[in-house]
Amino acid sequence: MAERDLEGKLLGSADLLNIINGDHENRAKPVTSSLPMNGGNGIYSYSKNSYYQKQSAGVEREKIIEEIREKLDMKTLSSVSNTIRLADLGCATGQNTFMTIQTILEAMQRKYKSQISQSCPHDYDDQMPEFQVFFNDLESNDFNTLFTSLPQDRQYLAAGVPGSFHGRLFPESSIHFVHTSFSLHWLSKLPEELQNKASPAWNKGRIHYTSAPNEVIEAYACQFAEDMERFLNARAKELVPQGMMVMIMTGIPKGMPYSQIPTGMLYDSISSSLMDMAKEGIIEEGEVDSFNLAFYAASPEEMAGIVEKNGCFGIERMELTNPAAWMKGPVDIPTLVTHVRAAMEGMFSRHFGSQVMDELFGRLTHKLLDISDLINSTCQEKVQLFAVLKRK
Amino acid sequence: MAERDLEGKLLGSADLLNIINGDHENRAKPVTSSLPMNGGNGIYSYSKNSYYQKQSAGVEREKIIEEIREKLDMKTLSSVSNTIRLADLGCATGQNTFMTIQTILEAMQRKYKSQISQSCPHDYDDQMPEFQVFFNDLESNDFNTLFTSLPQDRQYLAAGVPGSFHGRLFPESSIHFVHTSFSLHWLSKLPEELQNKASPAWNKGRIHYTSAPNEVIEAYACQFAEDMERFLNARAKELVPQGMMVMIMTGIPKGMPYSQIPTGMLYDSISSSLMDMAKEGIIEEGEVDSFNLAFYAASPEEMAGIVEKNGCFGIERMELTNPAAWMKGPVDIPTLVTHVRAAMEGMFSRHFGSQVMDELFGRLTHKLLDISDLINSTCQEKVQLFAVLKRK
Repeated sequence: MAERDLEGKLLGSADLLNIINGDHENRAKPVTSSLPMNGGNGIYSYSKNSYYQKQSAGVEREKIIEEIREKLDMKTLSSVSNTIRLADLGCATGQNTFMTIQTILEAMQRKYKSQISQSCPHDYDDQMPEFQVFFNDLESNDFNTLFTSLPQDRQYLAAGVPGSFHGRLFPESSIHFVHTSFSLHWLSKLPEELQNKASPAWNKGRIHYTSAPNEVIEAYACQFAEDMERFLNARAKELVPQGMMVMIMTGIPKGMPYSQIPTGMLYDSISSSLMDMAKEGIIEEGEVDSFNLAFYAASPEEMAGIVEKNGCFGIERMELTNPAAWMKGPVDIPTLVTHVRAAMEGMFSRHFGSQVMDELFGRLTHKLLDISDLINSTCQEKVQLFAVLKRK
Repeated sequence: MAERDLEGKLLGSADLLNIINGDHENRAKPVTSSLPMNGGNGIYSYSKNSYYQKQSAGVEREKIIEEIREKLDMKTLSSVSNTIRLADLGCATGQNTFMTIQTILEAMQRKYKSQISQSCPHDYDDQMPEFQVFFNDLESNDFNTLFTSLPQDRQYLAAGVPGSFHGRLFPESSIHFVHTSFSLHWLSKLPEELQNKASPAWNKGRIHYTSAPNEVIEAYACQFAEDMERFLNARAKELVPQGMMVMIMTGIPKGMPYSQIPTGMLYDSISSSLMDMAKEGIIEEGEVDSFNLAFYAASPEEMAGIVEKNGCFGIERMELTNPAAWMKGPVDIPTLVTHVRAAMEGMFSRHFGSQVMDELFGRLTHKLLDISDLINSTCQEKVQLFAVLKRK
């Protein structure tokens, strides 16, 4: 426990988490390629550097338990085959997915027991459904690390499912509960107009829509809506009626400019680090122009609109939280940058080359240290979107 | 096609295949450890060196198609949920598993169409069930290679399932068809008495029950029966009634000594290579005494007895075939040794050290070249067991 307290103190910071919370669907150039977390167990690996994500997910833990207790009808769900199927979409490689699944599983078992004990007070252990858990991420995710880390004492049958969650992953009406955290804010691809010099959405000198013209923001928003529509259509096929879906992702209060939150400050600092490197001839300026982060944060109102338009799901809960409620003291910038690197290095190194990564993250550390007061002053914003849907 | 003919000619050989057909459950010392195929795509990788297995499996291809056509009731199987679930147990990393699954899937689709067209001649494409395929192998298998090699145009939803097939892998009554090839001949563990100097089953100076006393053979046979019982019990839970299971593995005609078939000659040659190395001080003689291959070949009569004793399955087909019917000309020993190495290097290097692997496989090549006439003269034996079971 002492170690955990110390870590909490050392880290600090707020929605900077949002950028380090998963890199799943960035496909900057060829749409078919993809970049998962840093695999393995090395010093910049995601599995060794996902503490923020773990804590950040922990903020929502109690809410998930509450939703299952109050709103999931385990008796009905298990009545067809006595098997309950869970899926974690965008599971990556670390321990976070196992902890989340354990939380969900235990909540479901408690709910099942409480429902059965009301109708039939004996032998509910014998009738307890079997659980099968599907861990999903892109084909290029490090499933080997995931599989060899599976808890030995797990009370579920485990499977890995490679592929994009913007398409179909499971058979029709086969899944009872979907969880996805820190993945849906990654777009399946970048809007093409960002790189079209003739378009008002040409995103010159920036790597994101932070501090960009409205046309750029709109191009991102359109892509996000399109991705979500594909995601919801696929899940609508796969979830059984009354099946539940929990989505945790980066959010933003309606109308707030992205540049006013720490993640935006991070993006601006990466942009200016890259532009400095271009000016010094380390990279080309054109390379910065042609690089854009496929990352979008929606407001609850925007997300609700997309879900309602889709029409297959009822909204049980949709709210913003402060993902940094657990943090103590100010941001520890170097530790934060290590986390950012674990989650994002892949996409930068593919575009700019791995030989400039130390340089980039070194400069980023300095830039963030220069604005650490500003980051700390804004780091308690509610920028985590928590949504619970139910298949109609 | 020309390339394939050339390969067929270059390779040659018979049931030597059996030893290179999968290394899944060897757990020489700690039972919890395990050694899968050589992963990745290197020169000794299984995926680059599994041509024998592919051809060998091809011998049974038509039989599988026939069994599905004649005996599988697709209409009934798909009546519950319109999803058909297949599993390949011991799938390894290569292309073989994808080819096998494709064969099974197409045969099932044809059977479904023929059944539907009889009862309802329209729109069977609309009703075609969805297929979900589970690729299973041990946790340590290279699933990353498997997942990134999945056919792009596959007509099924894919999942990987890590774990030993001697235990439960899938929910109850959820699987419609199980295929397993070249895996079941690997024991889950070695009988302990093989290393007990006080036991009549102490297997000194040998690495297998080939040319060993009856007590050693019996110890192996008992372990095999125990493993099969666990395997059948797990599958009995998982398969739906009338679900089908195809098992392809090394077999042997009833009563034939193992030393009279090429695989036995291979084992004896490995033993004597190791003993030569021990005499020259490259390894310790005790290391040879304490090493045993966890590999067992059953006769059809023996397997039938185990299945009948278990009682959960009906035997639809149980026969021996010549796995080398496709081969032309004599065995190409160096190519064969490369295949043996791809499948077996892991278990030897863990015990004897990776630094002596080149030495071992070099010596093995020479020894096999010396007896190549003998190998060729026995290489058309029927030493592949083909079994089709149906869940009662």
